[in-house]
Amino acid sequence: MAAKSSKDIRNESRFMVLRTVFAQHTVTRAQISAETALSPATVTTLVGELVEEGVLREAGQVSSQGGRPTTLFQANPGRGALLAVDVAETYVRVDLFDVSLARLDQERMELAPGAQTIETVAEHIRGCVETLLHRHPELEGDVLGAGISLPGQVDPVRGVDVFAPNWDWHEVPLCAALEEAVPVPVRVDNPLMALATGELWFGAGRRFRQFVSVNLGTGVGAGIIVDGQLLRGRGNSAGEWGHTTLIWNGRTCSCGRSGCVEAYVGVEGIRATLAEIAPEHELLEVPHHRDFIERLMRAEVAGDAAAQRALLRTGDYLAAGIGNLVNLLNPEHVSVLGWITRYAGAELHDRVRERIAQECLPGPSSTLSIEFTEADGEGVSLGMAVLALEAFLERVGLPSPSSALTPAPPASGGGSAPGWAVPHGGLAARRR
Amino acid sequence: MAAKSSKDIRNESRFMVLRTVFAQHTVTRAQISAETALSPATVTTLVGELVEEGVLREAGQVSSQGGRPTTLFQANPGRGALLAVDVAETYVRVDLFDVSLARLDQERMELAPGAQTIETVAEHIRGCVETLLHRHPELEGDVLGAGISLPGQVDPVRGVDVFAPNWDWHEVPLCAALEEAVPVPVRVDNPLMALATGELWFGAGRRFRQFVSVNLGTGVGAGIIVDGQLLRGRGNSAGEWGHTTLIWNGRTCSCGRSGCVEAYVGVEGIRATLAEIAPEHELLEVPHHRDFIERLMRAEVAGDAAAQRALLRTGDYLAAGIGNLVNLLNPEHVSVLGWITRYAGAELHDRVRERIAQECLPGPSSTLSIEFTEADGEGVSLGMAVLALEAFLERVGLPSPSSALTPAPPASGGGSAPGWAVPHGGLAARRR
Ligand SMILES: [Zn+2]
Ligand SMILES: [Zn+2]
Repeated sequence: MAAKSSKDIRNESRFMVLRTVFAQHTVTRAQISAETALSPATVTTLVGELVEEGVLREAGQVSSQGGRPTTLFQANPGRGALLAVDVAETYVRVDLFDVSLARLDQERMELAPGAQTIETVAEHIRGCVETLLHRHPELEGDVLGAGISLPGQVDPVRGVDVFAPNWDWHEVPLCAALEEAVPVPVRVDNPLMALATGELWFGAGRRFRQFVSVNLGTGVGAGIIVDGQLLRGRGNSAGEWGHTTLIWNGRTCSCGRSGCVEAYVGVEGIRATLAEIAPEHELLEVPHHRDFIERLMRAEVAGDAAAQRALLRTGDYLAAGIGNLVNLLNPEHVSVLGWITRYAGAELHDRVRERIAQECLPGPSSTLSIEFTEADGEGVSLGMAVLALEAFLERVGLPSPSSALTPAPPASGGGSAPGWAVPHGGLAARRR
Repeated sequence: MAAKSSKDIRNESRFMVLRTVFAQHTVTRAQISAETALSPATVTTLVGELVEEGVLREAGQVSSQGGRPTTLFQANPGRGALLAVDVAETYVRVDLFDVSLARLDQERMELAPGAQTIETVAEHIRGCVETLLHRHPELEGDVLGAGISLPGQVDPVRGVDVFAPNWDWHEVPLCAALEEAVPVPVRVDNPLMALATGELWFGAGRRFRQFVSVNLGTGVGAGIIVDGQLLRGRGNSAGEWGHTTLIWNGRTCSCGRSGCVEAYVGVEGIRATLAEIAPEHELLEVPHHRDFIERLMRAEVAGDAAAQRALLRTGDYLAAGIGNLVNLLNPEHVSVLGWITRYAGAELHDRVRERIAQECLPGPSSTLSIEFTEADGEGVSLGMAVLALEAFLERVGLPSPSSALTPAPPASGGGSAPGWAVPHGGLAARRR
């Protein structure tokens, strides 16, 4: 079982340099060094490598206080483009980014209910990509890679969508279909990891090394950041907070368990809460998730008592769910993201704020900050563009660690048997 | 926000060398290198430092296959002794270890209910320590340090027991009282961290880099190991799985919340389950926790239907609680420890085994192993002896990282405000 190597450190340092450049747009090496606490020599080496690869470029000079001019650096938009694909419940969206992570263009196709087969999805992706590349002939040959976000449990190493609880995918072989649809190297991941990557690069990750990003949408989940890195777990499915228990033996969840957080805090959970409060409420019939939430909010503002109670109760559930994360992980910070915050963020925030102290142990809550970020729904594609960029950098020999996806090495001196691996001889086998 | 330094790597490597020596008792440098994947040169340096400090010593020679003799190393029991103090609900126990972590002796005093003040506890610790040192005059001046495990949320940096839910301690200043009671440098921690440290050094930590150790006792909790290191969180209270929700608005928990895992899986939780099934059951009157569990098991074996149902239901709760950890963290492995496993491990194990697949998402459960370890209750003191040894090594300039306790550095470019730190301007302040 190997410790971290100096290569790992180099990769983590490269990540911090890149993140500083992307977050601050134009920086000197001295500013990078101040922000990252890396030595000036290390920064010079790492920036040099990235300039040589064309990912960064010089952007003029500024005079330092002593009067000596010093070089500015920025991401190089001319280096090429990245495709970011967001496959959601109801649509497929493809965004085109340049290497400075500026969004150039976007295409979107609706997914008819029941049409969520891998063939349809791949065809929609191909359609969007072709349209985009047709509109941008200047990028021909310059697309460096694509990042594709797929719902459910995605294994980026095996390129397989292991399990999509809301769909009917089980062990779907994605690689062939997607690589055929997209004419560049493809990196797959799930929306939780994409959002958390965005938060690590551009959000709370710049201020905290231990934090959780909570995503509220049709599905709900969390990104767990430990020591400045995204926790992926054994098979890239860490963060499935939506499928932890809120009420044992409670509502049936899309995953097959009962009483999961998602069944109370996800959109269908909010709908179920409203139905418990007002079984005949007219909004229960609104099928589209965003319409439902938007109209629920309007009803709440207009004084609809059932809508108000449903939102309050959702806030109570959310506070308990966040309290669980805080008590278990004792993070410095929690970011609440996801499209639901755009519509219902203020109401949920107020209720969580009222309740959170009761839901957290005194120790962890005394040092905690919580921030609700009104998201515009672009977080997943931004995160996938970052992951596509990281995959490209890895291919050219400049890896950064939030893309580290090597599966756990085989254990030395032991062997981690798959499945339930209770040793022969029963429970008393290990006694201390 | 600094990346890992090469000093961190050195410390982690030292930890792996120490762990290998302690686990295998007598090893060659080549064996250490094979076990840790560290280079022979690194192993030679690290072993050399530890020999120089007297923590390791040469232990003869063996012939390698080529015939050339090679040196064996082992921990040096003659280097000194360590005190490990376990302050539990009903007793104070002090164990004496040598530096090879062999247990030399033990003293124990009962704590009367209601006598859990810091003064009484300190006095009991002092009594036990004095008795032990009196019995071992040969150790005079050779006790290198003490590790003291205290229930509740302990802050090893500030030396304060922040919050003990089952007792009535809030922000108790421990240092003065304990340092007066124990004539050597003191390292405080909580039993969860102590148990997880033991598991990291001697148990699953030798086979897995991502795992969770679950502790079942009067209180319940978890040790979370990420990338080979114990997750402590912002204020050393990570792992409070016992105070995450199993049933929202359910049973009142000792922490003040409702429906926590501990209120179902801890001893008083099992008692409450039995009371729900058979409100007049005679075992409900057994006050002592171990007696209660032991007699419950005897009743179960004798065919007492209520006892059988209570244990089954406890297994169901436990499976759901473990499922939550698995879904959230996607670990390679879960170790179930704690004194309850000594009495009820086989029954709980069988039920968890039956139920766990239903409680876990298919991805994480397909690669998971779970092991119930019949513990003899010595885990906490062993873990505290390890932590005391680590604290000693840190004082002599040879730190190993599972003792890393520096609080999170102030964030660069941000500032992590304490408390609820929603930015001025409200929720829409950050929009992406
Ligand atoms: Zn679920
Ligand atoms: Zn509790």
